[in-house]
Amino acid sequence: MPGIGPRTAQRLALHLLRQPEQKIHDFSNALLNARNQVGQCQKCFHLSAEEQCEICRDSKRQKSLLCVVADSRDLLALERTREFKGFYHVLGGLISPMDGVGPEMLNITSLIKRVDQEKTAEVILALTPSVEGDTTSLYLAKLLKPFTTVTRIAYGLPVGSELEYADEVTLSRALEGRRAMD
Amino acid sequence: MPGIGPRTAQRLALHLLRQPEQKIHDFSNALLNARNQVGQCQKCFHLSAEEQCEICRDSKRQKSLLCVVADSRDLLALERTREFKGFYHVLGGLISPMDGVGPEMLNITSLIKRVDQEKTAEVILALTPSVEGDTTSLYLAKLLKPFTTVTRIAYGLPVGSELEYADEVTLSRALEGRRAMD
Repeated sequence: MPGIGPRTAQRLALHLLRQPEQKIHDFSNALLNARNQVGQCQKCFHLSAEEQCEICRDSKRQKSLLCVVADSRDLLALERTREFKGFYHVLGGLISPMDGVGPEMLNITSLIKRVDQEKTAEVILALTPSVEGDTTSLYLAKLLKPFTTVTRIAYGLPVGSELEYADEVTLSRALEGRRAMD
Repeated sequence: MPGIGPRTAQRLALHLLRQPEQKIHDFSNALLNARNQVGQCQKCFHLSAEEQCEICRDSKRQKSLLCVVADSRDLLALERTREFKGFYHVLGGLISPMDGVGPEMLNITSLIKRVDQEKTAEVILALTPSVEGDTTSLYLAKLLKPFTTVTRIAYGLPVGSELEYADEVTLSRALEGRRAMD
């Protein structure tokens, strides 16, 4: 398992062996249930135990805003900001020819269909600032433009950082992405 | 001196004592000369041995663009990107009431005068994303708006970072600062 080396594995295993049998029974069942019940939301592809996830069922959210993320971890990171009040669409990865991931392996067809049907006013692409993120953003922007306004989250200096220590690529992006102050 | 602890200090001192006398003589003179000759550019307040610094004397740069930075270290960081082709103005710090730094202690009057006289088309504020940087940016924007367009460098995800690990404030800024894709 990620982040668990041989020593931690041994510690966890010995801890489990010391537990009463009923507890281990419950734990095993919980694991099985999680595996069986947690699937994908049919609408946004976020993790969900039901056909539609909690976010997609939330009627207080803005229908006109759709945020595209690579996976559920990114969705959860954005949710933690409590800033975004629209819906999400989870791609399931990023286009990466080096790793053999083509656009047809991601939830892109469903995204286009959804934007078209729901008459989404704005699609925000929230993908990592990497070669794969840039490629996927450009690809999606091209496909989505006939249907909606496409925006991209800002890339630049992270809050609390020093200009002096920022790498050159980040500084270039920050300069290039400058905005009028209102 | 910053970044030099007692052990490094001792190593450096012993190294200097082992050098021939002439070398130490030259080194001392170089230090004295640097202290005496390096002053401030009369125009942009960057470090300079002459009345105007190399950047201000460069006739190939765009006169219409002026980038405002807190100090010379930030100017040098931006120069390393080789992206910016306008001129600079070094404030000499940021407004910080906590540290007793008021606007009158910074090179602000000269900035306004310069923007007015040179008919600068755009002033880019390149200050750190901190309370002091934000305060100073808002203060300057208010003063500069009658004369020119005021923009600010982008704050958001640094290049090469992961959305998942970005702090909430940075993610909020990245969402808030999103841009249309063209």
